[in-house]
Amino acid sequence: MDNFIFRNPTQIYFGKGMENKAGEAVSVYSKNILLHYGGGSIKKSGLYDRVIASLKSSGVEWTELAGVKPNPRLSLVREGIKICREKDIDFILAVGGGSVIDSAKAIAAGVPYEGDVWDFYEGKAQPEEVIGLGTVLTIPAAGSESSNGTVITKEEGQLKRPCGSELLYPDFSILNPELAMTLPPFQRACGVADMMAHLFERYFTNSYPVELTDRMIEAVLKTIIHNGPSVMMDGDTYDAWAEIMWSGTVAHNGSLDTGRLGDWGSHQMEHELSGIYDVAHGAGLAALFPHWMRYVMNQDIKRFVQLAVRVWNVDQNFKSDEETALAGIEALEQFWQSLGLATTLSGLDIPGDRLEEMAGKCAGETDNPQGQFVKLYKKDVLAILEMAL
Amino acid sequence: MDNFIFRNPTQIYFGKGMENKAGEAVSVYSKNILLHYGGGSIKKSGLYDRVIASLKSSGVEWTELAGVKPNPRLSLVREGIKICREKDIDFILAVGGGSVIDSAKAIAAGVPYEGDVWDFYEGKAQPEEVIGLGTVLTIPAAGSESSNGTVITKEEGQLKRPCGSELLYPDFSILNPELAMTLPPFQRACGVADMMAHLFERYFTNSYPVELTDRMIEAVLKTIIHNGPSVMMDGDTYDAWAEIMWSGTVAHNGSLDTGRLGDWGSHQMEHELSGIYDVAHGAGLAALFPHWMRYVMNQDIKRFVQLAVRVWNVDQNFKSDEETALAGIEALEQFWQSLGLATTLSGLDIPGDRLEEMAGKCAGETDNPQGQFVKLYKKDVLAILEMAL
Repeated sequence: MDNFIFRNPTQIYFGKGMENKAGEAVSVYSKNILLHYGGGSIKKSGLYDRVIASLKSSGVEWTELAGVKPNPRLSLVREGIKICREKDIDFILAVGGGSVIDSAKAIAAGVPYEGDVWDFYEGKAQPEEVIGLGTVLTIPAAGSESSNGTVITKEEGQLKRPCGSELLYPDFSILNPELAMTLPPFQRACGVADMMAHLFERYFTNSYPVELTDRMIEAVLKTIIHNGPSVMMDGDTYDAWAEIMWSGTVAHNGSLDTGRLGDWGSHQMEHELSGIYDVAHGAGLAALFPHWMRYVMNQDIKRFVQLAVRVWNVDQNFKSDEETALAGIEALEQFWQSLGLATTLSGLDIPGDRLEEMAGKCAGETDNPQGQFVKLYKKDVLAILEMAL
Repeated sequence: MDNFIFRNPTQIYFGKGMENKAGEAVSVYSKNILLHYGGGSIKKSGLYDRVIASLKSSGVEWTELAGVKPNPRLSLVREGIKICREKDIDFILAVGGGSVIDSAKAIAAGVPYEGDVWDFYEGKAQPEEVIGLGTVLTIPAAGSESSNGTVITKEEGQLKRPCGSELLYPDFSILNPELAMTLPPFQRACGVADMMAHLFERYFTNSYPVELTDRMIEAVLKTIIHNGPSVMMDGDTYDAWAEIMWSGTVAHNGSLDTGRLGDWGSHQMEHELSGIYDVAHGAGLAALFPHWMRYVMNQDIKRFVQLAVRVWNVDQNFKSDEETALAGIEALEQFWQSLGLATTLSGLDIPGDRLEEMAGKCAGETDNPQGQFVKLYKKDVLAILEMAL
């Protein structure tokens, strides 16, 4: 197990009706906040009204900034920073999914920073101070509600880049599984794929031994695989959504990184996909991950066998690790397909004419490799993209 | 899944040599601290010298209070409170196992409290303010290094009582598995039993469904069962100790309580045992838990079947849940016995002449029941103690 330092300070409010505590939770930190969200869905569902009522009853004043889109844009972040500075706002309440929360994190880091907020995403600077942040999660997927990361897309150049900092853990997050039950089926499936991808990124490591976190990651995966099909259905799916929503948070809150170094190469490749084609992050991951797995599996075939046997209940072929490992990868593809997700780029209507460009933006020919389990240079990224077509 | 609110703010420093960060970690909070520990073992091992050197190099001044014993005593807690008040100390560094940390937590809560610190343990008051607390853990067992609880023994009346509060999470804890490698074998075994008991207390719940936390608890149990025998050996057992030490923290840091209500009846019964006979907490738990399991298993036999099959790899008898469940309990007894632990009271040289007294101190005939999975009144506690003889 690798040495590590870990602390996740986010306070979680989980369960039915918890959004009604938003005002109370916010008022510990501030009475003058930015309310940040996406479009009309939170108004249609009534969530907006409940959050506003809760803010009012706690005497919290707010300024609204709506309009966050999937793959959240730098331009809106800049607008948020401007508003907060003008109005002396020191706390953001993000109501939405990962995109809204990531956008809010960028604003929170940008407000006290004298330079350009994009510096954080280009690795030119690290946040040293942030304003406060709380969230009301509506889409279980990205894990941003209790993670130290944010991903923003700069329109110019179609660049989608991540930033991580201990300061970016939200102060609190409100998770009510009921809020997810009205999501369109495609978004539900993308969420399931996204959280599974977060677990795979952690699972594939060269750190050894890491038995506890291996087994815990497997536990979360099995829970998602068991409950994923249930949340695709209509009717009273609260119990299944509760398992899925909490799994999505646990998958990405840092606790399963302890003592191991994750990979994250597939995430970097996906960022190039959705930077150009604006595909949903979970959909992009589903189209790439199985192909990445086949490309890298000989780095540690036993780890792929372990995943296949323990998580996918593959009947182990003791004479052929490769056959066992591949059966696990096929089981993953079948599972994602059963949720209605494509496991190829062509299934996402992504043509093959810009693979070279994406590979080049992602990694260098001899420098800037992506991934830790296996370092991927441009030729590797290109090979995986071609396999994924 | 039950609604829940959860936050664990303890910063973890995990791995080889991490005790050398003690001074740096402390100095964020204070330059005038109480150094609290047990006896000579940390001096013999050289840990004391390393911690002192680290404090010095960070300019931290300290006052020492040694002498914490297993089942830590109220009298020493009172002494610590007095010292802290006299010297304006606002931070405690506890170097030791669960007893030292529990004693430090009591002092931390007692210093700013105007009443008697025992009020917290009698349920007469709740801590509303505490002074800071950091730990250097030497015995993986109690989980107190990242929990919200403390257990103290009042000599008068031989009363051992717990107190829990969100304020009692340590600010930081330093976990170096190397420090555990020199423990005597009996203490190693007791630690393994203690952390397994913490997981069982959470596992046996009437909250339903709780699939994610079920599977995560099982993951931690399997890791402990796999690595427990290795840490009983001599030689380079760092890797196994790392799994065990981190398992002990995860078992009790609150993350596995999320959405479920634990039982804790066996812990209450054990407190009566060690209150009177001063047995090691883990040893007392090993002598009681299997008997509690047999007494309550029909409350939810399927849950015992699940534990037997998933954790103990029992070959399920699909026609007899009882047979499967009992085979799991027997596997637990055999495992603890294989570590050198007794699974009966007589194995601990505890006679049968004070069972009635212990049962009466633990629970009332018609009020003050213990446990949540099954409520235990005096007659139930007595029946379990008799089974355990």
